[in-house]
Amino acid sequence: MSKIDKNAPVGVFDSGVGGLTVAREIMRQIPEERIVYFGDTARLPYGSKSKDTVVRYSRQIIRFLRTRDVKAIVIACNTASSYALETVAGETDIPVIGVIEAGAKTAVQATRNGRIGVIGTEGTIGSGIYTEVMRRMRPDIEVFGKACPLFVPLVEEGLLHDSVTDEIASRYLSVLKGKYIDTLVLGCTHYPLLRSTLGRLMGEGVTLVNPAYETALELKALLRERGISRDPEAGRNLPEAPDGSLDEERYQFYVSDLAEKFTDFARSILPNEVKETRKIDIENY
Amino acid sequence: MSKIDKNAPVGVFDSGVGGLTVAREIMRQIPEERIVYFGDTARLPYGSKSKDTVVRYSRQIIRFLRTRDVKAIVIACNTASSYALETVAGETDIPVIGVIEAGAKTAVQATRNGRIGVIGTEGTIGSGIYTEVMRRMRPDIEVFGKACPLFVPLVEEGLLHDSVTDEIASRYLSVLKGKYIDTLVLGCTHYPLLRSTLGRLMGEGVTLVNPAYETALELKALLRERGISRDPEAGRNLPEAPDGSLDEERYQFYVSDLAEKFTDFARSILPNEVKETRKIDIENY
Repeated sequence: MSKIDKNAPVGVFDSGVGGLTVAREIMRQIPEERIVYFGDTARLPYGSKSKDTVVRYSRQIIRFLRTRDVKAIVIACNTASSYALETVAGETDIPVIGVIEAGAKTAVQATRNGRIGVIGTEGTIGSGIYTEVMRRMRPDIEVFGKACPLFVPLVEEGLLHDSVTDEIASRYLSVLKGKYIDTLVLGCTHYPLLRSTLGRLMGEGVTLVNPAYETALELKALLRERGISRDPEAGRNLPEAPDGSLDEERYQFYVSDLAEKFTDFARSILPNEVKETRKIDIENY
Repeated sequence: MSKIDKNAPVGVFDSGVGGLTVAREIMRQIPEERIVYFGDTARLPYGSKSKDTVVRYSRQIIRFLRTRDVKAIVIACNTASSYALETVAGETDIPVIGVIEAGAKTAVQATRNGRIGVIGTEGTIGSGIYTEVMRRMRPDIEVFGKACPLFVPLVEEGLLHDSVTDEIASRYLSVLKGKYIDTLVLGCTHYPLLRSTLGRLMGEGVTLVNPAYETALELKALLRERGISRDPEAGRNLPEAPDGSLDEERYQFYVSDLAEKFTDFARSILPNEVKETRKIDIENY
């Protein structure tokens, strides 16, 4: 590991824009680190696809990120973390982390009554991975999963505050309300955008857990542990573009389709100006 | 064209299961023809992806179908027909047809007041192709398009008769109702499954057009014209499986992911038993 360049970027990937919520937390908590982000917009969504397919896609993306000389990889997608993390981490000589461990840890720390709900895609919930990881941390915990396949299309349609989204959310959550959970993991990177609706429906007694925050902390600790953190001063020496945009060296964005649409979305949720998004043909990797 | 084997199958493809509504019409209207169906379930949906990507995917699928020695190809997906038909038809030495021409022709024949609505994916509606084709057939026609991006996820969730689907449909259609259309093209292969909801909301005065029926007729005429129709007696000589299932030689199904889920869906909408669906890696073509 000693050969890894500390100034190399961290690779972050997702099926699309959702993982930007994780990239945003990394930018906030370790601003000196460089990021190469990839969103697989040509093949999204991952949530309704098979394990085999999601593993194959993740391998291609990791091969692409390696061409950008990343020093570590964050799988900022719950479905890919559920299905592919274990496999791809074993095939790669740089550290790879997902979002599941971080989300599970926060939830286990937050619960008072030991009853935790998890919402996510069909892939994430069907894999049972949140239950497995949380039970490993605390065997007496009770975990209740619920797949919410319509949330991603509703978010992508912009229906964040809408009677239809309320109705669908109320149906999905009713089964969890009946389980008296006191903690709910938002197990898909799109779901934090529905936080106000979900919070209102679950009521004040339920803590909502967004794994993005804890994932950024885990990355920070991991880089430090391996001795590959970037010098906090390093980032400050980079030239700042006159228009206040992020210097291109620090944050790079790649997608497999619809680069402009991605740039627009990224601009709406990231704290700094996003210069450009480059489109690549991921099937060639 | 004289070298084409009359007994070769027809290739039919879609982003997923929707195109089975077209395959079903072909089975009904020209039962002697063999079919090789491909559903791109690893990369669906196509409706929200770019033209470049949909063209690339369509080329790969056509390369795959050519390995099955098809004599003609039906693009049973409105988005792929909109974006890719012209390009891929020019690159291929066998006939390729889409669903747009057929849907447009039926609508132009059906309208009395010359005001036609078209609903479809963002790709299909954004391309403006229905307007273009219908205006070429009858220049004074008025066409009103409306993208309905939530219909596909709602259908895939099975919410065919549901208050949420009613509410979403009523929002999407309200703009078309204001245009006094008398004909509505269901410009996405999933939409015929919402026919009762759409019919009720539009009212009795509006004719709903499903391009699948006319596409099968167009295929039949095309095969005859090129002299490559299969002998109607040929199909009858094939062995019938003892369980009443379709003989494997006649109808073959391939997908890029989730073969079992596809088989279940295919069984629910096709008139005969579907034996099996094979999964292939479409990115290798």
